[in-house]
Amino acid sequence: MRAAVWHGPRDVRVQDVPRRAPGRGEVEIAVAYCGICGSDLHEYADGPHAIPVGEPHPESGRAAPLTLGHEFSGTVAEVGPGVTGFAPGDRVAVEPHYRCGRCARCAAGEYNLCAHFGFAGLMGDGGLAERAVVPSYMLHRLPDGVSLRQAAVFEPAAVALHGVRRSGLRDGETAAVVGLGPIGLLVVGLAVRYGAGRVVACDPSPARRALARRLGAAETVDAGGLPPGAADLAFEAVGSGRALADCLAGTRHGGRTVLLGLGGTVAVDAFALVNNEQSIIGSVGYRDCHGELIRLAAEEGMDFTSIVTSVVPLAEVVRDGFRALLDTTEEIKVLVRP
Amino acid sequence: MRAAVWHGPRDVRVQDVPRRAPGRGEVEIAVAYCGICGSDLHEYADGPHAIPVGEPHPESGRAAPLTLGHEFSGTVAEVGPGVTGFAPGDRVAVEPHYRCGRCARCAAGEYNLCAHFGFAGLMGDGGLAERAVVPSYMLHRLPDGVSLRQAAVFEPAAVALHGVRRSGLRDGETAAVVGLGPIGLLVVGLAVRYGAGRVVACDPSPARRALARRLGAAETVDAGGLPPGAADLAFEAVGSGRALADCLAGTRHGGRTVLLGLGGTVAVDAFALVNNEQSIIGSVGYRDCHGELIRLAAEEGMDFTSIVTSVVPLAEVVRDGFRALLDTTEEIKVLVRP
Repeated sequence: MRAAVWHGPRDVRVQDVPRRAPGRGEVEIAVAYCGICGSDLHEYADGPHAIPVGEPHPESGRAAPLTLGHEFSGTVAEVGPGVTGFAPGDRVAVEPHYRCGRCARCAAGEYNLCAHFGFAGLMGDGGLAERAVVPSYMLHRLPDGVSLRQAAVFEPAAVALHGVRRSGLRDGETAAVVGLGPIGLLVVGLAVRYGAGRVVACDPSPARRALARRLGAAETVDAGGLPPGAADLAFEAVGSGRALADCLAGTRHGGRTVLLGLGGTVAVDAFALVNNEQSIIGSVGYRDCHGELIRLAAEEGMDFTSIVTSVVPLAEVVRDGFRALLDTTEEIKVLVRP
Repeated sequence: MRAAVWHGPRDVRVQDVPRRAPGRGEVEIAVAYCGICGSDLHEYADGPHAIPVGEPHPESGRAAPLTLGHEFSGTVAEVGPGVTGFAPGDRVAVEPHYRCGRCARCAAGEYNLCAHFGFAGLMGDGGLAERAVVPSYMLHRLPDGVSLRQAAVFEPAAVALHGVRRSGLRDGETAAVVGLGPIGLLVVGLAVRYGAGRVVACDPSPARRALARRLGAAETVDAGGLPPGAADLAFEAVGSGRALADCLAGTRHGGRTVLLGLGGTVAVDAFALVNNEQSIIGSVGYRDCHGELIRLAAEEGMDFTSIVTSVVPLAEVVRDGFRALLDTTEEIKVLVRP
């Protein structure tokens, strides 16, 4: 079968790989759609960041070269020994967090903080392939009204929903969203759904600002244009010290900033943070979000596919996926259809 | 009357100042004890930081030179027009946050974040004096069993209690406290009281570590000696980038660090903060803490005066207070008895 395999920075190859039968507790998925994530781009551009090289990941047993892609949906093709609750033909969304099930965080239900933290498609083989084999605990069956295309966007939507939950958003609060990539745009839509009185969205791209307004933003501003101290809370979805500083300056005393972007070392004015009684809240991955996202899609008709700008074939994933996303701001979410 | 007046850095003078009759809504206190705070030391050493110079503070109407001291207790000497609920002879603790009562944060009950943020004794005249005149809303009457000496420590204890509340401490959690000045030591005692399963206290001073153990710390370590990732939450009570880094390294994935120290610009590894899903929570001053502290002292016999290392006369406040605290680590909390 064909798969997009990461061999090194700027070296992702669409190649033949052997099809693998699902082992105990595993399921083979015929992949319908797989989105390309910002973290995939980081791995393509100048990785490895999360991809294991040499030492295999303890849950996946895999190291590079491996198949990328963690935002995927598909149809169950084959179930391995010991799998209950799934059968060939089931349409599923994949929640790609590995869980060891034994560490303190897994025991506390915080499996996104598992001691063996990782994602299928980064620390193990993922969904940029015709078939993917994953543990059955990663699967969520889709109701009839929810499409496989919608389901491919649940993974970034889960990142956004987890961030909104981490923010402690209360009814009527004003939320600022800095950075309108896929995560920032999904945060806009979900913050509105979960009670924000007003969402102010911030990005240099007029096209992204327009999409934010369609998703419910009351006001959009250019980068650096947040009104000072006006928001109760902010979401940093860029991954830069500049964006974090904008969030802190744009929130009131007592305000919270949720960090979703993966930046490096940033400078923080601790004196102001204390005197303004502000918080910086890290948010990684998600837990217990997919059920709610399926419910929002099935019962409330929420459709997250408005962020999808292109659907491309697997053969062109490097040119029309990775490079297009890195070289332009026109693409927002690219889905690959293997 | 005699008062310790800040004129500039390294220029605090014990001098005669005119006694002022309390205005509408104000009360004159005969000061019994007034503690010296780390922020007083900052003002003495290299201020002004918070002291208004030139432009008067909007609530106090005062600018330098002004009388220092915001950790004080005493006896009501005279009440101004319109004051109800207090009479001469009442023993009181002073909660020195100014409140405009009209801004959004005051309206939300978060008066420690008042738009006119400030403390009597920093932004207006305080309690390092024979008499102090403050708004009556700052006063808490003391029950018979609570001494004026205990009451002088309620102000730093309120800072510590507010920090513990901001931390979201849950029963059984392991808390690390980095920096065992007065605030850190009070956090140790209060974290134990509010359910911490285990408190690990960190400071280079053996004497301070011994005091932390008396206040309930299960384990004490030298600076930089926190076990990695062992704590659920940490309190940074130093005000340095190094101490913040120690807190983040000493807490688990999903852990929280409450910032109580007033540092400058610090470097934060945002990539790790996100991937470890940690939070940095600023905490300033306090709100609605004094009633609880009075209750702890009156009903549970909690005595915070174990942090008091000296009681000195007002005339010697510079030598035996400011300089002694700056030049040695033997002094922890110095009370001045005007």
